[in-house]
Amino acid sequence: MSRLNYIIHKMAQHQVDAFLIFDANNITYLSGFTGHAATALVCKEKSYLLTDYRYFEQAKNQCTDFSVVCRDRVNQSLAALVKELLSQHHVNQLAFETDHTSHGAWLNMAKLWPDVDCLAVSRWVEASRYIKSDIEIKAIQHAAQIADQALENLTSVIKPGVSERELAIELEYQMSVLGSEQTSFPTIMLAAERSALPHGIPSHKKLTHGDLLLIDFGAVINGYHSDMTRTFVLGKASQKQRDVYHIVLAAQQAALDALNEGIVGQELYLHAKNVLDQSPYAQFQGEGLGHGLGLDLHEFPFIGLGCDLKLHSNCVVTIEPGIYIPGWGGVRIEDDVYLSENGLISLTSFPKHLIEL
Amino acid sequence: MSRLNYIIHKMAQHQVDAFLIFDANNITYLSGFTGHAATALVCKEKSYLLTDYRYFEQAKNQCTDFSVVCRDRVNQSLAALVKELLSQHHVNQLAFETDHTSHGAWLNMAKLWPDVDCLAVSRWVEASRYIKSDIEIKAIQHAAQIADQALENLTSVIKPGVSERELAIELEYQMSVLGSEQTSFPTIMLAAERSALPHGIPSHKKLTHGDLLLIDFGAVINGYHSDMTRTFVLGKASQKQRDVYHIVLAAQQAALDALNEGIVGQELYLHAKNVLDQSPYAQFQGEGLGHGLGLDLHEFPFIGLGCDLKLHSNCVVTIEPGIYIPGWGGVRIEDDVYLSENGLISLTSFPKHLIEL
Repeated sequence: MSRLNYIIHKMAQHQVDAFLIFDANNITYLSGFTGHAATALVCKEKSYLLTDYRYFEQAKNQCTDFSVVCRDRVNQSLAALVKELLSQHHVNQLAFETDHTSHGAWLNMAKLWPDVDCLAVSRWVEASRYIKSDIEIKAIQHAAQIADQALENLTSVIKPGVSERELAIELEYQMSVLGSEQTSFPTIMLAAERSALPHGIPSHKKLTHGDLLLIDFGAVINGYHSDMTRTFVLGKASQKQRDVYHIVLAAQQAALDALNEGIVGQELYLHAKNVLDQSPYAQFQGEGLGHGLGLDLHEFPFIGLGCDLKLHSNCVVTIEPGIYIPGWGGVRIEDDVYLSENGLISLTSFPKHLIEL
Repeated sequence: MSRLNYIIHKMAQHQVDAFLIFDANNITYLSGFTGHAATALVCKEKSYLLTDYRYFEQAKNQCTDFSVVCRDRVNQSLAALVKELLSQHHVNQLAFETDHTSHGAWLNMAKLWPDVDCLAVSRWVEASRYIKSDIEIKAIQHAAQIADQALENLTSVIKPGVSERELAIELEYQMSVLGSEQTSFPTIMLAAERSALPHGIPSHKKLTHGDLLLIDFGAVINGYHSDMTRTFVLGKASQKQRDVYHIVLAAQQAALDALNEGIVGQELYLHAKNVLDQSPYAQFQGEGLGHGLGLDLHEFPFIGLGCDLKLHSNCVVTIEPGIYIPGWGGVRIEDDVYLSENGLISLTSFPKHLIEL
């Protein structure tokens, strides 16, 4: 079933005549449009992409299954245009993305069509985005390969005296030069005890001999994100650094071994957690295990306690256990993986043994 | 009046007991907190910053006027925590930021406190952010200086054969090295006829002799954005390039000359528009004239048709008229400026005469 037909099927199931879509990535997924400032309206007979003069030409080129409407922003509100289309298509029941419009914007808008029954719905498109097509997987793979290569290029400049910030700038620059459209998220580059920070911004702190160095970063290709983490040691690792590293690696491997068709997110998480629980560092383990990856950096499933979603073939996820010891440091190892017909495939290829730089 | 007192005063005016704030930049502005994943609740007697273990330490360091609460995300929803605080403070009337919470999230949340009267409010904090303090102006100025310097560094590598994308990567790299925390927005770097695109992404198109080159970009310091545009010609400018350039420059100058205390946004816009209207390229002029600048890249006022806000001392705005001729090219010149006690100050210093590279 095509992406759009899946939505039209959803509409029929819920007995609505139309569906109003606000989320930019959901719109990209359904229509192919990669610009900003657009809203999509799917009616039973016809689908519309509403934008303005800035994106009109681009939208016409990209959206083959949608009728592109160029709105004159000065003279027509978005709500007025939607109202016109709802009336043209005799829409009585309208579903809308309740999570992707602000409370204020929605009330302002919906008051223009008091006679239409509005149904607040969640995750209609996201549910479809959960399982990736080959083209989507290829895009994430390409992004992951760029990240692998950029990190390899970076290793030659990681040395005592260089700052976290200098390394982060260099890594992001390398990804750009290799073709990444943007950084997947602001690079996390944390040395020594700062590597235990759950959310640190690269600082001017200079690396010194013996430091842990945690690097969490990613590239973007065709809008699709990669996301990987490696933790290095500068110089010879201490016994404790070595121990912590190998516990995290074993926890990741336990999850990768357990990742089979249909496994529930929470169960997968517990496989890694069991390994961490049995270590001397149980109390320092991170909160979740990983997340889906795609047009959004963080997508369904969110693999952790309470995750009741099943993992299926072709859903791309990160597996990223970690141990974070305040005042000492942290280790995280993160790969992007998916289940293919031939078993688990890692999109991240950078070596995972403990590297002493 | 302190920023927080201004809000407490607003609350009294509207007879509410508390104000729930969702927008990250509004929270930064009021509390000093620069992390993510926070919500603020201002009660008459006490203000709260609600976050989780990832940002708890940071928030305690940054938020001197707020009581920082660390929520256990697994065991307590945000709504449950807010409900507890509302009840502690006997809140009967609650104002909330209707524009900064999703329709779905708000309904889910507010159903937990059915006995509290909720008042949807807009722009309470934004209205206060409109006029900048000296510290805020200094941050924007610093960001603008980095942009000036990065562009100067770039000019030596702008030459035929280099691609838009290569130049954009280099410019962003230069800003990082000079201390910018992030790029203010994805750099617009468009050559030849592509410079007429209202929203173009740098491509692999290589520059050739005689091209227009439009560069729109900015840096960020302490969360504050700069935003500037310059348009160059590669080699000797044609008469038409020269003409269009000088019309845009004159339009900008007309607006800068008219920028006085109390002028209404639309009136300011018309000063530039009049110049463009009287030129042979009237039909190709851009839509607005500029926008406020601060923690957000685009803030109030949005200077254009229908803008009824007055410009005051210490509000920082961009002035960026442009002419965009489809198939030929575009010229935009943009500076960041503010009205000081001693008259208009430009935070952008890069030369504005037509530069032939």
